Amino acid sequence: MDAISVIRAKRDRAELTDDQIDWIIDAYTRGEVAHEQMSSLAMAILLNGMNRKEIARWTAAMINSGERMDFSSLPRPTADKHSTGGVGDKITLPLAPLVAACGAAVPQLSGRGLGHTGGTLDKLEAIPGWRADLTNDEMLSILRDVGSVICAAGAGLAPADKKLYALRDVTGTVESIPLIASSIMSKKIAEGTGSLVLDVKVGSGAFMKNLDDARELAATMVELGTDHGVRTTALLTNMATPLGLTAGNALEVRESVEVLAGGGPADVVELTLALAREMLTAAGLPDVDPAKALADGSAMDHWRRMIQAQGGDPDAPLPVAREQHVVNAASTGVLTTLDAYAVGLAAWRLGAGRARKEDPVQAGAGVELHAKPGDPVRAGEPLLTLHTDTPEKFASAIEALDGGVLIAPPGTDFTPDPIVLDRIA
Amino acid sequence: MDAISVIRAKRDRAELTDDQIDWIIDAYTRGEVAHEQMSSLAMAILLNGMNRKEIARWTAAMINSGERMDFSSLPRPTADKHSTGGVGDKITLPLAPLVAACGAAVPQLSGRGLGHTGGTLDKLEAIPGWRADLTNDEMLSILRDVGSVICAAGAGLAPADKKLYALRDVTGTVESIPLIASSIMSKKIAEGTGSLVLDVKVGSGAFMKNLDDARELAATMVELGTDHGVRTTALLTNMATPLGLTAGNALEVRESVEVLAGGGPADVVELTLALAREMLTAAGLPDVDPAKALADGSAMDHWRRMIQAQGGDPDAPLPVAREQHVVNAASTGVLTTLDAYAVGLAAWRLGAGRARKEDPVQAGAGVELHAKPGDPVRAGEPLLTLHTDTPEKFASAIEALDGGVLIAPPGTDFTPDPIVLDRIA
Repeated sequence: MDAISVIRAKRDRAELTDDQIDWIIDAYTRGEVAHEQMSSLAMAILLNGMNRKEIARWTAAMINSGERMDFSSLPRPTADKHSTGGVGDKITLPLAPLVAACGAAVPQLSGRGLGHTGGTLDKLEAIPGWRADLTNDEMLSILRDVGSVICAAGAGLAPADKKLYALRDVTGTVESIPLIASSIMSKKIAEGTGSLVLDVKVGSGAFMKNLDDARELAATMVELGTDHGVRTTALLTNMATPLGLTAGNALEVRESVEVLAGGGPADVVELTLALAREMLTAAGLPDVDPAKALADGSAMDHWRRMIQAQGGDPDAPLPVAREQHVVNAASTGVLTTLDAYAVGLAAWRLGAGRARKEDPVQAGAGVELHAKPGDPVRAGEPLLTLHTDTPEKFASAIEALDGGVLIAPPGTDFTPDPIVLDRIA
Repeated sequence: MDAISVIRAKRDRAELTDDQIDWIIDAYTRGEVAHEQMSSLAMAILLNGMNRKEIARWTAAMINSGERMDFSSLPRPTADKHSTGGVGDKITLPLAPLVAACGAAVPQLSGRGLGHTGGTLDKLEAIPGWRADLTNDEMLSILRDVGSVICAAGAGLAPADKKLYALRDVTGTVESIPLIASSIMSKKIAEGTGSLVLDVKVGSGAFMKNLDDARELAATMVELGTDHGVRTTALLTNMATPLGLTAGNALEVRESVEVLAGGGPADVVELTLALAREMLTAAGLPDVDPAKALADGSAMDHWRRMIQAQGGDPDAPLPVAREQHVVNAASTGVLTTLDAYAVGLAAWRLGAGRARKEDPVQAGAGVELHAKPGDPVRAGEPLLTLHTDTPEKFASAIEALDGGVLIAPPGTDFTPDPIVLDRIA
């Protein structure tokens, strides 16, 4: 077996054999296949595709490249959620303790942000004292005591995926449904959850710009999970505009706590509950109503214990950016567009995100929204507030918003799209 | 400008801009663009193509990555020939001194062999004392004194191509007409010849297996040469069966000397004269008849002076392999197929070629043919003689020939294809 023959096969539109896939993933993980060979194969896969059989084997080979976690010793069923990433997507924060409060165990291995979508760990790190890195034993112990844990994935899970993901990031080979699906699912299956709900975002602020691609990605991942014994469903959800009224690390923690306190923006509450119901059903608890756990304070109680278990102080004041700049509405009428990508890019430029893995993020930076699509706005009144410690970034953040805000004449009839667009099971 | 945006553009089927091409070739040569980025771009080019405008700019950028030679101080017009590579293709050896004897200067920068086609320098290195590496000054001085020189290309010519060719070789991205054409032509244009004749091989022993691909490659290269002020024409020639009666280094030198002495196999003589006429016409000497220079010994005289100028002894006995094995005809009839790829692979396995750049070659190894397609053969009489210093290789060489020899019943009407299949100008 050699790398060139595998590359040529996919280049010439052949189906890769099981042996070819097993060999190349293993040889790449060991360093026998060079980066430049894997990247030309990744481009051939991106352009020529892989069929379901190839994707399944590719995913299995990546799982087999590392360790698998096992939660079968826990007294509760496990449920996990994965979002493909969106602007203002803080849903994991209220969702994990909420589902734990309803009786499932939620082992939420998360990542840091890269590019215009924020990372869950970056958000939680805005909480003084909170730490993302746990040993497997610490993670299990928090799962047992609290019921939910949000932490960084250890280096031992799917190391082939880690190496390949970093390579795809610099070689223009990210945008491939077979490679995206196998990357996500290899980590989630290796993580050992019993059930999984996928939040596949669709729209300008998401990786998938149209519903057809999102549906294909969701169906591919649901099939992969199911084949590996993980009860998997997917919601396709709207990412044309940011979720909630904040995009930025500490800003999103604040909003998540509002939701746990029984308030918060309607879209965040709606999506949190929809995903909680999916997770509870997949975990075998279809009759538990998550709305109750929001209303009775038990979700908030789980949040506080979860944050404390990882060294965080849930009562400490959250960091606030040193400078604010208010963007006013340019005209009076109905807000019809507040583009998710534009807001995400503005938040990123203000310091909420990073350009390279090793960059720091500003805890207080981001964008606060004062209106959502469908709301009436008045000329000269605040539409957005930009937050940053580095005010020289205001100009480029405002530039990012250019064309991303549309206001229709007063009285225009406008109904925003729903949050949940479809369900794949 | 960054590598990912260039890769994405080609991946998404856009035309690369002049700036993108100039930047990526320069940045790759300097090491700023990584191998894994260039290989994913190469795969995107292989699968999505480049148009004529992109190929021209890509070629110019590779030329500009290094030095350009200049032969304008010579008193004669310069003419060069390039073959895309075939089995038994020793034509450069008699051709260069022949064209020099006819009044042109022939600066023939050649390479070593890799894979089943032999390299011109490997062949000449079978001559005791002959050396391939010359300084630019030595090269110019031999061109002035003798009129022809065959030597290794210096490291300063098109370094971007050298780096990219080595990368393509290990990443499954060799088989792209835009990349092949720009690779060949960047070296030939940088070399500074005034005219160029391309021998584009077609058939099992060649890179191009069918006439359409060969025609497209030839037309692309002719246009690139013409655009850069090099008078360029191409012959498409038959590589279904080996050229002449030998494939192997010393074996081919011997046959070349036979041609220079006025004998040799008819197909080698025919192709040598056809290419010589093309070169002389392109060099502005259309009325000189190269057949005369073969007949009157002046081509042989130039050969001897050329070999001596590079330290070789034209009278020294050529190396002979330690062991021979004769392959007999299996039946009586008419030889209809003697497959070029099968013979090339057998010669390579016997030691005439190399698997890796750093491997040595055996001067005496190779295959000698006792019949050509169209010839009558008799069961049990010699068809091929295999030569090697490593007789343990006979078995795998014989295996390479399996299916490559076809004999039709006696009396079968069979006319072999012509040598020259088409001409592109």
